[in-house]
Amino acid sequence: MKTTDIRICFIGDSFVNGTGDPLCLGWTGRVSAAAIQQGYAVTSYNLGIRRETSADIAARWRDECARRLPAQSDGRVVFSFGANDTTVEQGRQRLSLEATLHHLRAMAQDAQRHYLTLLVGPPPVAEAAHNRRIMALCHAMAEVAQALGVPYLPVCERLVQGRTWVQEAAQSDGAHPRQGGYAALAALVQAWPAWWFAEAR
Amino acid sequence: MKTTDIRICFIGDSFVNGTGDPLCLGWTGRVSAAAIQQGYAVTSYNLGIRRETSADIAARWRDECARRLPAQSDGRVVFSFGANDTTVEQGRQRLSLEATLHHLRAMAQDAQRHYLTLLVGPPPVAEAAHNRRIMALCHAMAEVAQALGVPYLPVCERLVQGRTWVQEAAQSDGAHPRQGGYAALAALVQAWPAWWFAEAR
Repeated sequence: MKTTDIRICFIGDSFVNGTGDPLCLGWTGRVSAAAIQQGYAVTSYNLGIRRETSADIAARWRDECARRLPAQSDGRVVFSFGANDTTVEQGRQRLSLEATLHHLRAMAQDAQRHYLTLLVGPPPVAEAAHNRRIMALCHAMAEVAQALGVPYLPVCERLVQGRTWVQEAAQSDGAHPRQGGYAALAALVQAWPAWWFAEAR
Repeated sequence: MKTTDIRICFIGDSFVNGTGDPLCLGWTGRVSAAAIQQGYAVTSYNLGIRRETSADIAARWRDECARRLPAQSDGRVVFSFGANDTTVEQGRQRLSLEATLHHLRAMAQDAQRHYLTLLVGPPPVAEAAHNRRIMALCHAMAEVAQALGVPYLPVCERLVQGRTWVQEAAQSDGAHPRQGGYAALAALVQAWPAWWFAEAR
């Protein structure tokens, strides 16, 4: 057992929560369990909330993370959001691209001052038009993340190509996959060289 | 699938978080997954934080739960805390019994106004003297819960008798069990008639 006391806050939306996974792990539980099984002393805090946009997350992430990441621990933060920002409700997108990128910039800059920070892009849903907006956001997020020096993992395109995520979402509520989709997203994170416990290291 | 949108906040300490469980489920993940597998549409929010006493939880539970339990969902709250209150540090117990019961009363009364509410007592640790203080708290909690009409499940004594929890805690950090202990606590919750998804109903 590696003894450094690592505590990770995963902060974001319902996909971070793992909504729809009958095993109640989501991708965050799967990547945390894999790290523990590699011998890391990881405490995992799941701070995903359904329906939240980046504006909602910006309003709470600092308080919720600060309570969970005491100064004497090795505190880390993983952000993941964006699908709700790009939802169209009553003819309007919930948040403009500019607003999402503004919140991303503010949160990531602040988080990097205190914690090791990663950004996982928004996964797809079962609706093609919505996925086009998510994909556009993914590309814009990549530029912001690069400018800030925050490691960023785009996942939308690869999850669409992999099919399981979108098929499971279509068979449930149109947005949330079941265990296969979450396992696929967990596999992308674990294969990501920037992930702190990447498999191929 | 039963379609009522049930959302549960489990709020408390490291035992709620599931610290030490290599599967990253804890007892809350196990009981939530079991409910989903019974066909209930459950969204589970884990709000356990390491080292927190009832005073810490009293300071945050309302905000953190309110964000996760919108009025249009069937919101429920499960409290579980107490072991940290009874820890002795530098010769002093972190919180007096009176202080713990004060926080319990305040939180449970407030929670009941808004949500279906349950209370799960503190589990044991691997130290006999500390367990005697936890057991005393368990008995006092039972009286308060009964007076308030909040269903309460005492678990400390049964987990000590069942041995797995304490043995696993002794083999790890002295406080947190591994998957066997958390599965034992989950089984107690699932066999509890007040549990919303009790097995024997």
